[in-house]
Amino acid sequence: MNLELILQELDKSQKYAEMRLFELLRFKSISTNSKYRSDCFKAAEWLVKQLSDIGFSASIRRTAGNPMVVAHSDDGANSDLLFYGHYDVQPVDPEALWLTEPFEPVIQNTNDGPVIRCRGAADDKGQLMTFVEACRAIQTVERKLPCKISILFEGEEETSSPSLIPFLKKHAEELKSNHALVCDTGMWDAKTPSITNSLRGMLSEEITIQGPKKDLHSGLFGGAVPNPLTIMSKLISGLHTANGKVNIPNFYEGVEKTTVAVLKQWEKLNFSETDFLEKLGLSNSAGESGFSVLEKLWNRPTCEINGLWGGYIDEGFKTVIPSKAHAKISFRLVGQQDPEKIRKEFRKKLRKEIPSDFNITFSNHQGSKATHFSLDSKIMVAANEALTNEWGKEAVFVGGGGSIPIVKHFKEILGMETLLVGFSLDDDQIHSPNEKYNLTSFHKGARSWVRILNKLSTLF
Amino acid sequence: MNLELILQELDKSQKYAEMRLFELLRFKSISTNSKYRSDCFKAAEWLVKQLSDIGFSASIRRTAGNPMVVAHSDDGANSDLLFYGHYDVQPVDPEALWLTEPFEPVIQNTNDGPVIRCRGAADDKGQLMTFVEACRAIQTVERKLPCKISILFEGEEETSSPSLIPFLKKHAEELKSNHALVCDTGMWDAKTPSITNSLRGMLSEEITIQGPKKDLHSGLFGGAVPNPLTIMSKLISGLHTANGKVNIPNFYEGVEKTTVAVLKQWEKLNFSETDFLEKLGLSNSAGESGFSVLEKLWNRPTCEINGLWGGYIDEGFKTVIPSKAHAKISFRLVGQQDPEKIRKEFRKKLRKEIPSDFNITFSNHQGSKATHFSLDSKIMVAANEALTNEWGKEAVFVGGGGSIPIVKHFKEILGMETLLVGFSLDDDQIHSPNEKYNLTSFHKGARSWVRILNKLSTLF
Repeated sequence: MNLELILQELDKSQKYAEMRLFELLRFKSISTNSKYRSDCFKAAEWLVKQLSDIGFSASIRRTAGNPMVVAHSDDGANSDLLFYGHYDVQPVDPEALWLTEPFEPVIQNTNDGPVIRCRGAADDKGQLMTFVEACRAIQTVERKLPCKISILFEGEEETSSPSLIPFLKKHAEELKSNHALVCDTGMWDAKTPSITNSLRGMLSEEITIQGPKKDLHSGLFGGAVPNPLTIMSKLISGLHTANGKVNIPNFYEGVEKTTVAVLKQWEKLNFSETDFLEKLGLSNSAGESGFSVLEKLWNRPTCEINGLWGGYIDEGFKTVIPSKAHAKISFRLVGQQDPEKIRKEFRKKLRKEIPSDFNITFSNHQGSKATHFSLDSKIMVAANEALTNEWGKEAVFVGGGGSIPIVKHFKEILGMETLLVGFSLDDDQIHSPNEKYNLTSFHKGARSWVRILNKLSTLF
Repeated sequence: MNLELILQELDKSQKYAEMRLFELLRFKSISTNSKYRSDCFKAAEWLVKQLSDIGFSASIRRTAGNPMVVAHSDDGANSDLLFYGHYDVQPVDPEALWLTEPFEPVIQNTNDGPVIRCRGAADDKGQLMTFVEACRAIQTVERKLPCKISILFEGEEETSSPSLIPFLKKHAEELKSNHALVCDTGMWDAKTPSITNSLRGMLSEEITIQGPKKDLHSGLFGGAVPNPLTIMSKLISGLHTANGKVNIPNFYEGVEKTTVAVLKQWEKLNFSETDFLEKLGLSNSAGESGFSVLEKLWNRPTCEINGLWGGYIDEGFKTVIPSKAHAKISFRLVGQQDPEKIRKEFRKKLRKEIPSDFNITFSNHQGSKATHFSLDSKIMVAANEALTNEWGKEAVFVGGGGSIPIVKHFKEILGMETLLVGFSLDDDQIHSPNEKYNLTSFHKGARSWVRILNKLSTLF
């Protein structure tokens, strides 16, 4: 591969790459709300067109939900690499906090250089396009890719990927490759490239409790009937102990102590807890006492309330005791914690704690275990070298607090390990208003993939 | 007064009375949301027209919010009676639970007889029209009213009456009467007419807490930062003790023991706690242990959560740690409890309990003290006789769990006592979807007012 010529090609065509990314960003491909179903389809169709343009045989694959995009550089069986990304995005609410149109990408100059401001810029449209642009530049210069590459883009990542497992199982032969690549993680900081070598698992639950069979006037009934909002608050308060531990029986079964080797790696990062908190407007960390912030983020499990509601929540006041209260709750898992066991214990605990004349219903969201990779595989070493070359600074191995269930599925269903390389930054505001992706992340991200493909292709 | 002729007139013209009420019900006069401002104006104008038609000199009086309607049968000073009602209504949400259009009144036949189904049918449009129809029938037959009557209709009752106190103060000379009449309470049951002789006071607060300065991804930040939804749940859980007492310093200051005489009155009511709870789909009462349901409803103070929200509360899942959490909280007060003292203690407690790097803001809703009337005044005795005559069953004195702040203001600003007579029923679903008012309440309510005016007019 003529590495220098390909990198030059990327530099020359940067503006066109941005224009292509902007086209993708404009699709309102929110997967958590079914009213954006057709926007998701349009984004998928656009990706098929892009991949076809650069020589992939690409197609839409229908599912019960949003479609998959599958592409192959070759005949499609036994590829060397399978690249995965997702074209769906988070909702934009609270929309009032956006300073620009959420789905109209703009380039803004900031103190840290130019950024692309748009929902999905970092999570995950900008990231997946770094790989597509890398392939485009290689094709332009070489007229072929350096190894057999398959691509899988999903449109339901932000909604727990309901179609993914059946799809992987059904198309295992077609998708099974030597190694998987995923671009949905971040850099340690704007100058330090990173490989993520562990991910927390996740379990999410939505609960509704019902007490009185209808909404009641709090003057006429208050004081003599149980209020579901008070009961829900008690249930939630009871999910943590006073010292920040998750208060569910057997929850910590399978949690492993962080090894000294890993703790030493983290020391090298020169992480400042004070700076971390200050950026968030906080002065104290929360969670389990006795652990560092990095350990709490990367190797300790959590229970977080992601949504809570009930009663009158609009302008003004309504003196109501509502019939129902609702919560969305998620757990991050580490080590060998088993999501299904924890789900059972969680439900059992809550059923026990509600008043005997209350109903509780649970809606079944998916769960995934945590993942850990060995640091010294050939692939990890090669990717580390490639990233170090591009960024002029030694790449670091970091833990990941988030969950990328695809990694677990690739391992369990397709027998593949995954390389997690990404270019987003802590201040990208993914899942929040005013999401952005640095232009440097986008451009040097694409250059990084060219270098990684150059190294990895020699291994097959 | 030719009582029999007037009652016959009401019976004959019942259909027309219903048509008039339907016109009033169709105005979407929701006062808790400013977008219905013009509907409130239209309802007020309609009332002015109605009152003018039956000989009152009536007019709209502008305020900073929704207008007052003031009417006089005479020259307007030193009336014998001032009748008060409110033409504003509660919001309709959750709208999906309505089985008919919320603002399109219909008559439905039920097992308990025909009912008028519509938002505001019972609270308070149907009730205030019982008095207007009584006056209309008297005018039709007699060509004059039996005493000097003034009327005050307000349009902000459901939003804590922000304009009321300044208005009463400014127009004290014009409004001051011998006695006030309010029709905004209920009957003990569908056959037993009632006079309410006590009302709980009320204090309401809306709070917002903020922790992290922006919404965060619960994977990337969860476990190391405080979650405002968890903190809010703890604050709310901390508002009650394990045995159901309100857990705010000095909260019970001014609460008076229920007297034996009053407890004996309540015994006569043959109240069944089991039936009361069963109708609500419950098997256990809540609140302070050691008190009966009636005592908890009528003579014990409460703290209720009326709204609670934060994070992602739409369809699907969003793994967010929100920056803020919100709650609407109201207290019902009894005896001599002082709302402003309690507000201070409440705020102090919450400020102390939030983490030191959190902010908390309070929005200032009004408060009112509880009210108690003597049972043996001439007015009470006369009204009791009139109701007993109309319904053929002895009228009872009951406590009121709700708050009607106007009663306190009439006493403090205009030096008037109030007679509380109303015809709504426990199952009228006021403040809830599918509100209704029994046709019997409407028709016999108007007849009751004719009888009451007939008795009371002899006292002046």
